Amino acid sequence: MTHEAGAPVAEPIRARIGAAEFDIHLGAGLLNTLGELWAPLAAGSKVLLVSDTNLAAHAARAAGALERAGLAVIPATVAPGETSKTLAEVERLSRLAAAAGLRRADAVVALGGGVVGDLAGFVAASYQRGVRLVHVPTTLLAMVDSAIGGKTGVDIPEGKNYVGAIWQPEMVVMDMETLRTLPARELSCGFAEVIKYGLLDGTPLFERVEAWPELPGPGDELAELIRLCIEHKLRVVAADERDLGIRASLNLGHTVGHGIEAAAGYDRYRHGEAISLGLLAALRIAERECGLDPAWRERTRTVIARHHLPVTLDPAVPTDAIVAAMGRDKKASAGGLNMVGVGAPGDVRLGVNPDPGDVVAAIEELRQ
Amino acid sequence: MTHEAGAPVAEPIRARIGAAEFDIHLGAGLLNTLGELWAPLAAGSKVLLVSDTNLAAHAARAAGALERAGLAVIPATVAPGETSKTLAEVERLSRLAAAAGLRRADAVVALGGGVVGDLAGFVAASYQRGVRLVHVPTTLLAMVDSAIGGKTGVDIPEGKNYVGAIWQPEMVVMDMETLRTLPARELSCGFAEVIKYGLLDGTPLFERVEAWPELPGPGDELAELIRLCIEHKLRVVAADERDLGIRASLNLGHTVGHGIEAAAGYDRYRHGEAISLGLLAALRIAERECGLDPAWRERTRTVIARHHLPVTLDPAVPTDAIVAAMGRDKKASAGGLNMVGVGAPGDVRLGVNPDPGDVVAAIEELRQ
Repeated sequence: MTHEAGAPVAEPIRARIGAAEFDIHLGAGLLNTLGELWAPLAAGSKVLLVSDTNLAAHAARAAGALERAGLAVIPATVAPGETSKTLAEVERLSRLAAAAGLRRADAVVALGGGVVGDLAGFVAASYQRGVRLVHVPTTLLAMVDSAIGGKTGVDIPEGKNYVGAIWQPEMVVMDMETLRTLPARELSCGFAEVIKYGLLDGTPLFERVEAWPELPGPGDELAELIRLCIEHKLRVVAADERDLGIRASLNLGHTVGHGIEAAAGYDRYRHGEAISLGLLAALRIAERECGLDPAWRERTRTVIARHHLPVTLDPAVPTDAIVAAMGRDKKASAGGLNMVGVGAPGDVRLGVNPDPGDVVAAIEELRQ
Repeated sequence: MTHEAGAPVAEPIRARIGAAEFDIHLGAGLLNTLGELWAPLAAGSKVLLVSDTNLAAHAARAAGALERAGLAVIPATVAPGETSKTLAEVERLSRLAAAAGLRRADAVVALGGGVVGDLAGFVAASYQRGVRLVHVPTTLLAMVDSAIGGKTGVDIPEGKNYVGAIWQPEMVVMDMETLRTLPARELSCGFAEVIKYGLLDGTPLFERVEAWPELPGPGDELAELIRLCIEHKLRVVAADERDLGIRASLNLGHTVGHGIEAAAGYDRYRHGEAISLGLLAALRIAERECGLDPAWRERTRTVIARHHLPVTLDPAVPTDAIVAAMGRDKKASAGGLNMVGVGAPGDVRLGVNPDPGDVVAAIEELRQ
């Protein structure tokens, strides 16, 4: 089904991934209807509601909606930011759930951005070997990316998301109103992934993304743009849930991007910012490896800049540290970096293994 | 295929559980052939070999066999016993693997009893969201039970196996020679689960178990008995991998058994000992709830006693503490204890919810 730009987004998106089937609800004010949307859960069920300390107002609305539906809410908050993605937090949340008597037929609700989704998602995947999960992403990044596809996990000092699971939710609820209170920088970071989908999906989506004004832009149209990104990701994930093939395409811009994040320290660049730089480097490499017309990189650079995302790399982040971190990326193999490239928007190439010198050159070019 | 008693067990058992298909090898001296058996793993692959400090000799043989096949072994040991089943140990082992460069196409080998299998299995399930796993159970309990079916996990103070995953191995290798060095008490504990299979499978297997002499008995026949138990468990798990239905039958004796373990402290009774008492209590309850002929309990009691497993409960373990712990069992629901019963060997009943007074009476009867 297609929606015209500006039309209200009312029908949920039906996701089918492996044996899992669930609805993704997208609209304004949905937090208040969370309990009604969640018909399959019996009244009296317990819900571990995980959010971060910045999200108290949203969490209170969600808790109220769940309680009105007869569910017993166990509230849990974590500190905002990547430092909460630890096994120690998994243990703390699991113990909280156990002490409150959460059982296998009960559920976890992950309300927040990528950090809360990854952490609470892994708690849901592992508590009593797996309980029900509802994702309520409250950032643009989580809506278009991290809440979709079932990847959950926490970090160890040796790497991000090194301990985790693939665990699908039984519902995803996106309340567009949560984006209103999102800091501009967070909104922009989500847009970096939107730009990625434009490059992966093809010229029509790329040009729609390219034409987007400064964020947030018109609300209904933003919901529609989010839907198009989700639908792209769902198609890819449905074909390759366990990330053994085409799902790697979603990593476009992430090989260099993760390298920049790791080398710069996770507070210098946010994920979306590092990915913006990573996309530009990936397109530079794709010009040589996949015959990409350089005009696409210029156009992408213009979109990135419009959304106040970085197009030049901090000189303080050394290239050799970035390259070393890239070699430790989970997607890398003994055979090479296994980067993603495009020959044009929508013409996706996997297993791109450029010469080390070309990788260095692409990173150096980000400094100009 | 059926084997006559005493015939050598040469053909591997082919397991099919969900999308997973793998071989279970069972024979004498197989540790030395571990590398050859594991044909699918490319030379140069890395293997995190997890064992406990009591198993140094077996681990050295396994490491040698893997290295002869061109695999790079990352050795890891944990302290023996349930106290090693923690998220802190998951983190330590994951960091060890990451520091050694273990990647998604590499593997974990779990060599040991139930503790090592549960812990290392969960590391395999969660490291980089899942890597290959080989179980090498070295105890009778692990061979007939914990290494089969994919359950992995660690404990939190609120409950055993409260954080874990269902993760199938890609091979299981059982070397009968590892049973030779097993302490007699450990061997007996495994036999408690063998008795359980007799009750679940039907009169022919029960009578075979009933006729078993003191452990270990004749080697080839023991391998055949193990095979029959594995085949029973595989049938049940294949029908219900995620433990939403018939798989609960494998919990026969475990509701009261887990309650006794928790109430007595995990050092007073080993798992198999608590399960022996739990089986007798479950049969007592089944007499009332499922019409079981009391002669089956008498016969079961005789087998249990022959293998030096307990048939009477330590008076120091209070009944109310056992009952309270039973209510916290993962299998319990708001509706009741969801115990397993039998109307006769092989006639399995699920969802048995006796009156609390009958549960107390069955536990009290264990004191006589």
